[in-house]
Amino acid sequence: MSKKLAIGIDIGGTLTKVGFVDRAGELYAHLDFKTRGYLRVDDYVSVLASKIQYLEKQLSFDFEIVGLGIGAPNANYYRGTIEHAANLDWKGVIPFASKVKTHFKVPIYITNDANAAAIGEVVYGNAKKMRDFIVITLGTGLGSGIFANGELIYGHDAMAGELGHISIDKEGRLDGLGIKGGLEAYVSSTGLKRTIFELLSDSILDSELRNYSFNNLHGEYITKAAENGDEIARAAFEMTGKILGEQLANFVAFSHPEAIFLLGGLAKSGKWIFEPAQKHLENNLLPHYKGKVKLLPSGMSDKNVAILGAAALVWNQHNH
Amino acid sequence: MSKKLAIGIDIGGTLTKVGFVDRAGELYAHLDFKTRGYLRVDDYVSVLASKIQYLEKQLSFDFEIVGLGIGAPNANYYRGTIEHAANLDWKGVIPFASKVKTHFKVPIYITNDANAAAIGEVVYGNAKKMRDFIVITLGTGLGSGIFANGELIYGHDAMAGELGHISIDKEGRLDGLGIKGGLEAYVSSTGLKRTIFELLSDSILDSELRNYSFNNLHGEYITKAAENGDEIARAAFEMTGKILGEQLANFVAFSHPEAIFLLGGLAKSGKWIFEPAQKHLENNLLPHYKGKVKLLPSGMSDKNVAILGAAALVWNQHNH
Repeated sequence: MSKKLAIGIDIGGTLTKVGFVDRAGELYAHLDFKTRGYLRVDDYVSVLASKIQYLEKQLSFDFEIVGLGIGAPNANYYRGTIEHAANLDWKGVIPFASKVKTHFKVPIYITNDANAAAIGEVVYGNAKKMRDFIVITLGTGLGSGIFANGELIYGHDAMAGELGHISIDKEGRLDGLGIKGGLEAYVSSTGLKRTIFELLSDSILDSELRNYSFNNLHGEYITKAAENGDEIARAAFEMTGKILGEQLANFVAFSHPEAIFLLGGLAKSGKWIFEPAQKHLENNLLPHYKGKVKLLPSGMSDKNVAILGAAALVWNQHNH
Repeated sequence: MSKKLAIGIDIGGTLTKVGFVDRAGELYAHLDFKTRGYLRVDDYVSVLASKIQYLEKQLSFDFEIVGLGIGAPNANYYRGTIEHAANLDWKGVIPFASKVKTHFKVPIYITNDANAAAIGEVVYGNAKKMRDFIVITLGTGLGSGIFANGELIYGHDAMAGELGHISIDKEGRLDGLGIKGGLEAYVSSTGLKRTIFELLSDSILDSELRNYSFNNLHGEYITKAAENGDEIARAAFEMTGKILGEQLANFVAFSHPEAIFLLGGLAKSGKWIFEPAQKHLENNLLPHYKGKVKLLPSGMSDKNVAILGAAALVWNQHNH
């Protein structure tokens, strides 16, 4: 019997990741290539199709492709489009799924990366038996995927779950979409860096982080500094975790999830972000939610979470 | 053929309202009685049952009761309980549905009043064809019922949709559950009164509202004052509508509703609350939501919205 496989495709601003994944989450062949450099989306899709054909040849067993799942910025699940994605070269509304369909005869599903991560958590991760949970991706920005009643919330026009742009302070920092005090301006890898620079400017404390430019300051340097006892790094994690925990408590009042999962670059800082977030989440919960909402890391294998999430889109439909 | 009817029961802190409602939302017989004065919940339930029997005798046609729907504070839909309701005499966790079941052989559904209002909006009101919308009830407090993917969001433990207790300002007013800056402390009939009193203390402007004590200041006096050109009343509505609009914009980023419905005492102020709320909602929406979210009054007949909402619980299940 041939093995059933899904193709997971994650289209990031820099890299596109492609892989073949089975129902159990095993990744059989994968590669990545640069997303940029294709002014016409059709050229990009042709290269994508040839990369998939290349990967197919790497598989030494009989297989059947059951579908393609695609995670992409500003992807619209209902329409199969990528719409006004700031990080991609293609402007306007791109009928992406139908372009991919000219190369493949299987069902094609597309949504944004945070929604794909949430579906991945159900199919492969730590939310297998959960009906109500929230996934928060903490990378360059803050993305979110929300499950309620056992289904992803897409909303009226497939654009639900933009928690990175909740305004927490009308006098606050501008976020990537021009929202004053948008949550991701504080809680994300970039938000953490902004807080580091705020603290470096406000205080006269010595810090190893004074040796980095904004562009060269990577998250792991901040984690390393916190581990070395750097007070600026520790204060920045505390501030970031406090804002995250307070806002998660508000999100609980919306959909009352069983668990909230954190993933992405900032989540890799581990206890430095989880501990303050957990403390301030619990402190700010309504009485009847206290002790009932778990804050957890993703259960997907860390390295290939983007491909797994995209592939999970296929299995999630296939099971229905 | 006998007419199919649902019984709708709304248990408020002061009055219990009961009525017989058909699938189309016609109310055939109804009454209300005082909720308080029954220390044992069993005594209250017996009186409730006798009131229903009395109403049955008023009906001069053949009918069949298909179910009982109950809206009550802190009601848990999953468990059929009323839990720690601050406004009722009965403490702790009350197995309310099973107590009612001893008197009636039909299915019984119970949830909180805001959730009942949301289901009422689907069954009888302006959300008949909507899958994604939010109902906000603006009375003594702020309640909410959220539909996504065509279903009410109950959450992991049936306590989702507590938007009145979203904290908007960690240094702000205490709300009824002890949350600092809880939204309902600003946006509700009580919140409006608190804002009036804040403005009366901050300013030296003359105002007809300086003649009322806090307890005697009813919402309609504030609306009347605004209509008379009273600057304090108008400023209070503007402040209340601004906070409401800003927070509704955040809620849109969560579930991307097609519409948001306002009902309850404060919503009866009409344009005084709708206009500033609409303006600040639109101004604060993310670019891809702008112009796509309607702010609407309830479509249920104003007077009996509580009974209709409770009865709708029955029809919503009956249709499945």
